[in-house]
Amino acid sequence: MADVVSIDPRTGATVEVVAQETTTADVDRLCKAALAAFPALEELGRDGRALLLRTLADALEERRDDIVAIADRETALGSMRLNGELTRTTYQLRLFAEVLDEGSYLEATIDQAGDTPMGPRPDLRRLLVPIGPVAVFGASNFPLAFSIAGGDTASALAAGCPVVIKAHASHPATSGLVYDILAAAAPKCGAPEGTLALLHGLQAGADLVAHPAVRAVGFTGSASGGQALLRIIEQRPDPVPFFGELSSLNPVVVTPAAATERGATVGAELAASFTMGGGQFCTKPGLAFVPRGLAGDALVEAMAEAVTGMPAPVLLNEGIAAAYRRISIELAEAQGIETAASGGAARGAGFQAQPLLLTTSAAALPRQATEECFGPVAVVARYDGEQDLLAAVGALPSSLTAAILRGADETELPALLTDRLRPLAGRLIYDGYPTGVAVSWAQQHGGPWPSTNSQHTSVGTTAVRRFLRPVAWQSAPQSVLPRELTDGFTAVPRRIDGVLHLPD
Amino acid sequence: MADVVSIDPRTGATVEVVAQETTTADVDRLCKAALAAFPALEELGRDGRALLLRTLADALEERRDDIVAIADRETALGSMRLNGELTRTTYQLRLFAEVLDEGSYLEATIDQAGDTPMGPRPDLRRLLVPIGPVAVFGASNFPLAFSIAGGDTASALAAGCPVVIKAHASHPATSGLVYDILAAAAPKCGAPEGTLALLHGLQAGADLVAHPAVRAVGFTGSASGGQALLRIIEQRPDPVPFFGELSSLNPVVVTPAAATERGATVGAELAASFTMGGGQFCTKPGLAFVPRGLAGDALVEAMAEAVTGMPAPVLLNEGIAAAYRRISIELAEAQGIETAASGGAARGAGFQAQPLLLTTSAAALPRQATEECFGPVAVVARYDGEQDLLAAVGALPSSLTAAILRGADETELPALLTDRLRPLAGRLIYDGYPTGVAVSWAQQHGGPWPSTNSQHTSVGTTAVRRFLRPVAWQSAPQSVLPRELTDGFTAVPRRIDGVLHLPD
Repeated sequence: MADVVSIDPRTGATVEVVAQETTTADVDRLCKAALAAFPALEELGRDGRALLLRTLADALEERRDDIVAIADRETALGSMRLNGELTRTTYQLRLFAEVLDEGSYLEATIDQAGDTPMGPRPDLRRLLVPIGPVAVFGASNFPLAFSIAGGDTASALAAGCPVVIKAHASHPATSGLVYDILAAAAPKCGAPEGTLALLHGLQAGADLVAHPAVRAVGFTGSASGGQALLRIIEQRPDPVPFFGELSSLNPVVVTPAAATERGATVGAELAASFTMGGGQFCTKPGLAFVPRGLAGDALVEAMAEAVTGMPAPVLLNEGIAAAYRRISIELAEAQGIETAASGGAARGAGFQAQPLLLTTSAAALPRQATEECFGPVAVVARYDGEQDLLAAVGALPSSLTAAILRGADETELPALLTDRLRPLAGRLIYDGYPTGVAVSWAQQHGGPWPSTNSQHTSVGTTAVRRFLRPVAWQSAPQSVLPRELTDGFTAVPRRIDGVLHLPD
Repeated sequence: MADVVSIDPRTGATVEVVAQETTTADVDRLCKAALAAFPALEELGRDGRALLLRTLADALEERRDDIVAIADRETALGSMRLNGELTRTTYQLRLFAEVLDEGSYLEATIDQAGDTPMGPRPDLRRLLVPIGPVAVFGASNFPLAFSIAGGDTASALAAGCPVVIKAHASHPATSGLVYDILAAAAPKCGAPEGTLALLHGLQAGADLVAHPAVRAVGFTGSASGGQALLRIIEQRPDPVPFFGELSSLNPVVVTPAAATERGATVGAELAASFTMGGGQFCTKPGLAFVPRGLAGDALVEAMAEAVTGMPAPVLLNEGIAAAYRRISIELAEAQGIETAASGGAARGAGFQAQPLLLTTSAAALPRQATEECFGPVAVVARYDGEQDLLAAVGALPSSLTAAILRGADETELPALLTDRLRPLAGRLIYDGYPTGVAVSWAQQHGGPWPSTNSQHTSVGTTAVRRFLRPVAWQSAPQSVLPRELTDGFTAVPRRIDGVLHLPD
């Protein structure tokens, strides 16, 4: 068995052995336990699972300082960011408890028996039910909010699905601590053994997505990692849904009016957005379209100034730092790309990365500028006019987000850009930046390929829909129906004979 | 170019050349036209598309007799069934118009800007938008309701997606007539050119799912056909959702109480269900669990009696008839399977098939008895007691449906069976038979693999969800928002700050 080690990214040194990689036999045992736990977890009902989620949130809050300390040591993300991320994590758990309280997510629907133009119709009742055990992959860049107790786990538990989580190798100690806290708290409110499990190791992750008990997979990570898992899923005798969020360019368009009105401000804000968290966000703006001319020049100068003064951030792990060096150098040296500014150089044994601001021409956008480079680099593409801009924007790959910075009263160009960008993004942002993804009812974090999550979100309340499937009961006796479908139940919204009814 | 011919299944004779197989260049042209039509079709809005669907339904009704005559000549399904199927088809188009009128399907959601425990939240507004051009594959067994003007087309058009339809080779003349009717009617209510297209030929179908303009695929057909398309989709640079409904066993369980109370009736009804339409339904009950003993014997005798007196139905095409002969013989000759009754023998040059009733033991269920055999054959598995029954049922593959026939006041065994069968089916039927799938709000036609449609339905109003994807607008000016998300719009249900509001 191979050791799972925790490394300090600030020094590159191995700090401790945290665990052993999970064996294939143990993956099998844990997945079977998850399957065995499934009926009892569903049986807890909406109330029981809402209590579970709130209990888990409370348990994490009680250990806030320990969690943040160990996460900071393993990720170098800093305690302010990590405190915020833990707040996000517990808020997220509690918000899914509200989703359960409210009950719309069940899509409870009743068609009463009767005659139709098609002939007599039997009594039909439809509800979304949990899909079964879910495999969750912790993300490198969010050790808390997209990892053990993150959005995938919260939404799967809310749905009623046991969760088997593969810890990310970047933060195994944080993962272990968070898991221990959850595993100790869950039984206190009746969650069955097997509700949660933790795995370590690449092979364990592969075994997990191949396991017959697993009914869906949630993944946030690299395109190569996600595609490797997808290949395994395609080989299953029964392929299961794969909700992957694999990479994203997140284009930002600054209109001429916005550049003229507030170029310097936008430049400083854009620089802050693409370097935030070391540029290690799936929503990092990797490509910004800025008009040629004086106003655009001022914007780029403000970005360059911010980048020049910036120390080299410490990236999450050696692999990400090495990939950043390789890809950012390839990008900087690509035909048609120039370096506008660089920040402090990477030095020492830790996983530092030099911030970089590059420029190019929108009319001859190099391929490399349209591909995600994880880390503190962004490309500014200068455009000459609307036609130049719209043509370049229309040829972009899909992203999680697209942002439009416009003039105070500008409507025409933003509307044209909206038409071009909507097919390419899950979230459209106006006069703001893509980093910072609110957890709320209306959020959408996904999009067309390279998200495999094109019809769902991994952030926000509707993330629960990924782990549900519809079942219809035809002419069923009351005794076998889920309570939300029984006659006279009024505590959740229900559609009856096509008409939506709210709770009394 | 290869001829597309229309064959009379009653005689096996080629009646006419209907068209030429669509070339790769023409598939490309039609898919590009669909993509070009997409913005204008969406622009029609909910009202405009509801009018479109009703107009198409009216146009089909006007040509009812012509459609039924040609469909009967090509499928041998009979004019009563085909009249019913056309009624279902036009009802379905009109029901999706109601879905558009009602507007819940948009999942309109607004989170107003404000403070949260996570910090300040921007204004976020979410709506489901059409996914883009949809590829639809006509089914062999429903020349109307699951073909050119069928549920996939109706739900895709409702969503706002142009549709490129591959006609099934079993009924190209019917497909051509229905397409011509739709294509003539659509422009009358403003549908852009490119809203609908028709393809013929196997290679054209493969070209279609590989085309970059196609954003989702709806398929009803064989497991082998569906898996071939899935392989093509997996090779796309941007895999798209594949909503396939590939095969289904549809187990039926008769409890001892039901057998005792009404064994002979159930036997006659079961025989009618599995031979209906020549046994060519995806919901055909292929396997029935019947208790051993006198009551069960009487049930099987009633089935045998019905089958013995039954003439050989004409199947849809030569391939289906040949596969039926091969698979039903293999099934009948499998270890542990006995033939209880056979109907009229297949004779003549047409595609006739001999009805077959087979029996076996639930305790030693042969693999072949758990696989779909398209055509007029069913297997009765006799069981000894509850334990025997529950063990056999729990080991079944997933199906579109599972049915439980119970005693008048029986609750305990039906509840146990429900627990076992729910994970394996999309629809649970009590005291009824799986054939006959109502088009309604609460319908679910799908299920775990071998449906790739596990989280969605291909029948009923929520089928529209397959062709939609969520988009969030952050801090957007009113001028770029879809009207259903603008301030003060009240004509559709909307969730505002987590609270669902119904129209005034």
